[in-house]
Amino acid sequence: MKLDTAPPRGMKDLLPPEVELRDRASATILSTYQRYGFRRVETPALEDLKLLLGSGGGENEKLIYKVLKRGAKLDAATTRGEDDLADLGLRFDLTVPLARYYAHNRATLPDPFKAIQIGPVWRAERPQKGRFRQFTQCDIDILGVASEIAEIELILATSAALVALCLERPRIRVNDRRILSAMATHCGVDARRHGEFFVILDKLDKIGREGVERELREAGHDDAGIAKLFDLFLSTEDRSPDGKLERLAATIPATAEAVEGLRTIVRAVAREASDRATLEFDPSLVRGMGYYTGPIFEAVHGGGTAAIAGGGRYDRMVGRLLGDDVPACGFSIGFERVVSILEERSEVAESSRERIAFLFDRDDRLTDVVAAAARLRSGDRVVSLTLKRKNLAKQLDDLAAEGFGAYAVLRPGSEAPEIKPLARRAAGGDRPNG
Amino acid sequence: MKLDTAPPRGMKDLLPPEVELRDRASATILSTYQRYGFRRVETPALEDLKLLLGSGGGENEKLIYKVLKRGAKLDAATTRGEDDLADLGLRFDLTVPLARYYAHNRATLPDPFKAIQIGPVWRAERPQKGRFRQFTQCDIDILGVASEIAEIELILATSAALVALCLERPRIRVNDRRILSAMATHCGVDARRHGEFFVILDKLDKIGREGVERELREAGHDDAGIAKLFDLFLSTEDRSPDGKLERLAATIPATAEAVEGLRTIVRAVAREASDRATLEFDPSLVRGMGYYTGPIFEAVHGGGTAAIAGGGRYDRMVGRLLGDDVPACGFSIGFERVVSILEERSEVAESSRERIAFLFDRDDRLTDVVAAAARLRSGDRVVSLTLKRKNLAKQLDDLAAEGFGAYAVLRPGSEAPEIKPLARRAAGGDRPNG
Repeated sequence: MKLDTAPPRGMKDLLPPEVELRDRASATILSTYQRYGFRRVETPALEDLKLLLGSGGGENEKLIYKVLKRGAKLDAATTRGEDDLADLGLRFDLTVPLARYYAHNRATLPDPFKAIQIGPVWRAERPQKGRFRQFTQCDIDILGVASEIAEIELILATSAALVALCLERPRIRVNDRRILSAMATHCGVDARRHGEFFVILDKLDKIGREGVERELREAGHDDAGIAKLFDLFLSTEDRSPDGKLERLAATIPATAEAVEGLRTIVRAVAREASDRATLEFDPSLVRGMGYYTGPIFEAVHGGGTAAIAGGGRYDRMVGRLLGDDVPACGFSIGFERVVSILEERSEVAESSRERIAFLFDRDDRLTDVVAAAARLRSGDRVVSLTLKRKNLAKQLDDLAAEGFGAYAVLRPGSEAPEIKPLARRAAGGDRPNG
Repeated sequence: MKLDTAPPRGMKDLLPPEVELRDRASATILSTYQRYGFRRVETPALEDLKLLLGSGGGENEKLIYKVLKRGAKLDAATTRGEDDLADLGLRFDLTVPLARYYAHNRATLPDPFKAIQIGPVWRAERPQKGRFRQFTQCDIDILGVASEIAEIELILATSAALVALCLERPRIRVNDRRILSAMATHCGVDARRHGEFFVILDKLDKIGREGVERELREAGHDDAGIAKLFDLFLSTEDRSPDGKLERLAATIPATAEAVEGLRTIVRAVAREASDRATLEFDPSLVRGMGYYTGPIFEAVHGGGTAAIAGGGRYDRMVGRLLGDDVPACGFSIGFERVVSILEERSEVAESSRERIAFLFDRDDRLTDVVAAAARLRSGDRVVSLTLKRKNLAKQLDDLAAEGFGAYAVLRPGSEAPEIKPLARRAAGGDRPNG
């Protein structure tokens, strides 16, 4: 019986050049974050379902891969539902596990705690182009800092990492959950319906103003409130971030504290990092996760609208676990998006290591071959043993395409092998016009 | 409600110094393997259960974490068992996924294909000291090479990696599945019962000769056969690997081909790598996985008996997927064991990066603080912003313990901050007698 050899639906195999590009990208990000004083931590891929559910993860909680209990009885009489069958789930982000990690290890962690996490997360999304069911996130988080210095450091470090990857200077959209709440109240939305109101508003990029208006009306929001919402957006259009914020605070005094916080963030980043980030205040920015409590932000690459990084403040998540709230704030790079931008450019820097293919014949004594290869394999040099094929010309072409710069063969009667260069292929291979 | 914040049973959170040690260890292993021409690949954590089950993974197949089907109906009338509930599982090793990967991507992979895999695997083992339910493996595999040069390269590269980690020179025990089969036949064991015979023999290290004899008798093997088995072991004791192999081939001629292969491997490694590995032929070595077809080997550290690396030839695994057999061979480092040895030694090399804690007051202007920190953060230097606490002396102690070598503060009226060294703590901190 032949089995299907494709990876599971929505997941992917990574070929050597892909892994090498990813390794270089994550090393660049890691090194940048470390310069800002962040340090790497790791949590298990699996977490207790009780932790993952009700964590404020929004729609993502519906996409959790649940793991069958060991030895679960599948007795119809006792099995009432999934809760009886599963007790663990694969993490859907790195923030919820970090809050648990911090609550559990707080006594041994520095205060404030500045964490880097790079690792896979899993979501059972409907498969579509560019979306995967296992994907990597690169997060930095600061726990224990209530001041806007946390947001400022996160934005500076993240934009420094994006620029270190040679991406264009990102546009960073900022907003604040408290501003969203005040706006919703201003528009006559009952506090209990704020969540649903934000979910619809969050679709503005995708379905446009008319779509949002229609969905709000369908959800029973009245026309006066909807009109007030878009008046707010209009009245802050075409202004500098500072001007927009000033205008908003004048219209809705309840936003004053959040507005003052955003102004601090916008000014500090503008002064320090105008070369590597542009900040924009966008009162329609929502961010999906329900756990955010204060400033929220996302980075957009080039002229696009899709976020390559997103984050915000979640001051109450640790409190759910510890009893005491701990101020917390994070920024997460969508590693798959970044890698796909780097891949599209095909600016795949080659390794600087010298790579030699050592070709041997079936008749060569293996001990001689191994000994000669070991002598060549000095310093940083890569020496790979390969059986010589009948069609040597084709084999040498293949080796050059694999990135070998030279090949070596044993010389009869000599301990030192003969080394010959391989013709370098032009970048982009055989493609005409690159 | 407070939730339990411990990681799931048998899994662990990694603190920053632990992750940093692991990162250094895996970078050392990766760099060594790359010098031998291996290249990194990655597969998803989840695989189709049809692939994982019946893969020859032996006991490990019973330890698979199975993932609940999305939207699986939990209707008692239609749910007959786990097969109806789960279609994916977390990988229990990196070899079975690699065989699938090779079968799926063969057309775009070099021939021969030399793969590095570093990543987590999951087994629902009974929790015990030093055993985890999520743990990392570092594997190298060569696909497409039938000659013993594959085993030789794997053993040379793996022992080079262990030595690069500053571990003692490993003892490497070698055997061959064909030798085990010939021995079992020689002892009168029916071919259909070989597997069960090997499972008992594999316990020799743990339960000793008497235990193995008892279990074989209990399983219905006759005394004459059992006596023959131990005669074989006795007759090859106290000899060099070459001498043992010669003796075995003389006693059981059916072992001749496998013996010749092992002699080639033993001689080549002895000639090339006597400084970094000692090879021993051990006819009682079994290795748990059912998928091995030829030479098998494991590396033992120091005087212990527990393996820190294990591997062998599995020529028929790809054939199960592709239809055509592809010669294949791999060696896997048990990364958790290696890391725990490195941790016990507490030879945790500190990062050479200069680390400065930038202390600021609540009254300092954030933009000034951020600007001054950015000026300090040149080159490879780590600069971490931290709010000054009331008890500065205690804070400076804490910062020194975290590995900061200096701290900086703003100077009134000056753009350049003042930098002061922090007293270095002796390695081992406050502990008396290290």
